[in-house]
Amino acid sequence: MTALAEERSVGVITPQTVHFDEPLALDSGRVLPGYTIAYETYGELNADASNAILVCHALSGNHHAAGYHSHDERKPGWWEACIGPGKPLDTSRFFVVCSNNIGGCHGSTGPTSVNPETGELYGADFPLVTVRDWVRSQARLADHLGVERWAAVAGGSLGGMQALQWAIDQPERLRHAVVIAAAPRLSAQNIAFNEVARQAIRSDPDFQEGRYAVTGDRPRTGLMLARMLGHITYLSEAAMGEKFGRDRRGTPGGYRYNYDVEFEVESYLRYQGQSFVDRFDANTYLLMTRALDYFDPAAAHDGDLSVALSGVTAPFFVASFTSDWRFPPAASHEIVRALLDTDKRVSYAEIRANHGHDAFLMPVPRYREVFTTYMQRVATEVGV
Amino acid sequence: MTALAEERSVGVITPQTVHFDEPLALDSGRVLPGYTIAYETYGELNADASNAILVCHALSGNHHAAGYHSHDERKPGWWEACIGPGKPLDTSRFFVVCSNNIGGCHGSTGPTSVNPETGELYGADFPLVTVRDWVRSQARLADHLGVERWAAVAGGSLGGMQALQWAIDQPERLRHAVVIAAAPRLSAQNIAFNEVARQAIRSDPDFQEGRYAVTGDRPRTGLMLARMLGHITYLSEAAMGEKFGRDRRGTPGGYRYNYDVEFEVESYLRYQGQSFVDRFDANTYLLMTRALDYFDPAAAHDGDLSVALSGVTAPFFVASFTSDWRFPPAASHEIVRALLDTDKRVSYAEIRANHGHDAFLMPVPRYREVFTTYMQRVATEVGV
Repeated sequence: MTALAEERSVGVITPQTVHFDEPLALDSGRVLPGYTIAYETYGELNADASNAILVCHALSGNHHAAGYHSHDERKPGWWEACIGPGKPLDTSRFFVVCSNNIGGCHGSTGPTSVNPETGELYGADFPLVTVRDWVRSQARLADHLGVERWAAVAGGSLGGMQALQWAIDQPERLRHAVVIAAAPRLSAQNIAFNEVARQAIRSDPDFQEGRYAVTGDRPRTGLMLARMLGHITYLSEAAMGEKFGRDRRGTPGGYRYNYDVEFEVESYLRYQGQSFVDRFDANTYLLMTRALDYFDPAAAHDGDLSVALSGVTAPFFVASFTSDWRFPPAASHEIVRALLDTDKRVSYAEIRANHGHDAFLMPVPRYREVFTTYMQRVATEVGV
Repeated sequence: MTALAEERSVGVITPQTVHFDEPLALDSGRVLPGYTIAYETYGELNADASNAILVCHALSGNHHAAGYHSHDERKPGWWEACIGPGKPLDTSRFFVVCSNNIGGCHGSTGPTSVNPETGELYGADFPLVTVRDWVRSQARLADHLGVERWAAVAGGSLGGMQALQWAIDQPERLRHAVVIAAAPRLSAQNIAFNEVARQAIRSDPDFQEGRYAVTGDRPRTGLMLARMLGHITYLSEAAMGEKFGRDRRGTPGGYRYNYDVEFEVESYLRYQGQSFVDRFDANTYLLMTRALDYFDPAAAHDGDLSVALSGVTAPFFVASFTSDWRFPPAASHEIVRALLDTDKRVSYAEIRANHGHDAFLMPVPRYREVFTTYMQRVATEVGV
């Protein structure tokens, strides 16, 4: 952490955990006999607990959304661009909470936790969870923190889907929903990419039907491939072109005529894939992609999203990025249109950005501007 | 083959082979000590050998471009939509030739052939070949067939790149170049997808450094993953959406909450991946993707494609498809612009089609129309 980075950062943060003893009934029909949630908070909860914001993470995220775990840490939390003093989720006004989803692998109960019923690690036996399950589990975290009603529930990508689901399932418990770079459901192409990633993991001999914790040989190759593939979909073609183009690596003269790294983009992908393997669990990756596949709040209403949203009371802030081809602006349009169709309040920003889906993580000036403006309105509303 | 299919088809075709004893010097610096080419021909070569057209295949294609190998065969050759009586490459006028590229796995010398120097299968020892190498090897096929000058060299995707390279390297040996759904070079994103495919194959334990022929355990999983991934890039998002949407498979009620096939698109991809493994060689797949990565005729001219094309004499027919995101219209524009910049003759059609990259294989009416019109001009020119 440099002095400059510290300036507008929440600084050094200590993650917390809370255990809930009450069983959690899941959409799958299975029951989780109690669970732990790992979370972080930034800023101070005010006296009437009106300034709390829940931030939900995406596929490979966790509860470390802002700041640093130590003075030596080089990389801050994943939403550092948007959480901190003077940033859109302004920690001098708001009390910002981010929790690791259940099924995750960074402290909340998930495949790498011990199943209290067997005394063994869950591994592949951890039940599949849905976005609705996450909302239910996060509501208990709100109870624990003494937050009756969030000033906002916010997230990007799969995190935005959680914010959307919160607005549907717990309308009385949030004032605003912030849905960024999300979609009301995955397209066939989205599911297809997820399926290739899952097949890569599940066909890795070290996957061992998901019981790899027993031998300790994890499906590193499969998870690496899944991450490499994911990365391609997070960046726009233009951003990849700008960042790497056909830049070469190694011998400056001719080609090597073999399969070693020849282009910078190959080196980048391999590095991204390999480093991910050290910090992520394959069963969690599978489960998160399935939660994405399953998310489709309109499905229970004959595909009519506006019916699914009819009980929503929270005004929405929806944002999309022009070069996002994973969840393109058209996916956000669908959310906005459905909200308008059922006479809800919605602010929508379509932000010109070259970074693809990853733009939601980045300090894009126009994005910060409109996001800040919206959140200032929320701050005024709750009196902070 | 149904009676209807037979009507405008070249019918039953017998593949041929020819062996060249003369060594072939490759771009890599290695030398191929002779090679066999498997090929098919459709239509009749005329007396002055002026009506011959060379068709070049794409990544996973081969010399079986049209017709059927037997009356029982269900699927015709890969470019059945464009080759046959009354079709763009009209076999009642033209003598159409399609050969399997060297390095291929369907009869031409490649990784699955015996290395005459060792008496063993080449496997991973087969040298990496380039698009230029293919042009050189195909020129000898022209000699063998008594074709001094092709009426046209034509292809889609990687096949289009070969047509482009022919026009550059052998300007006096073709009258026209037909370059469909191609690109003057791969983008970083294209290379990235190739790299994931290669990593999938090379990290499969059954790959055994490419020497899998020794044990007989082929890297089926890796090749399956590569093909699944490829398929996503061949179709447009819209086409996938139309074809599969979120259509479900199996239990009509709720989700299964496991990783079995849940959506039609998963089933489709798995089937495509698994069936490909039975008909394709992993070393060939690797080598073809590398040839794609390396293709970049402008590179030797400081990235200036018009300089690379300055010696071209053949007029070009270039076509792209609006929904092709693998080699989008912008990639064809670059070819067209470079040709115009150096005062070459070029006809360009940008065809509205929903099918993505695969559109070049399909009977898209407008595509057939413009392609037919162009080829009729070629026919008139050569007097057939």
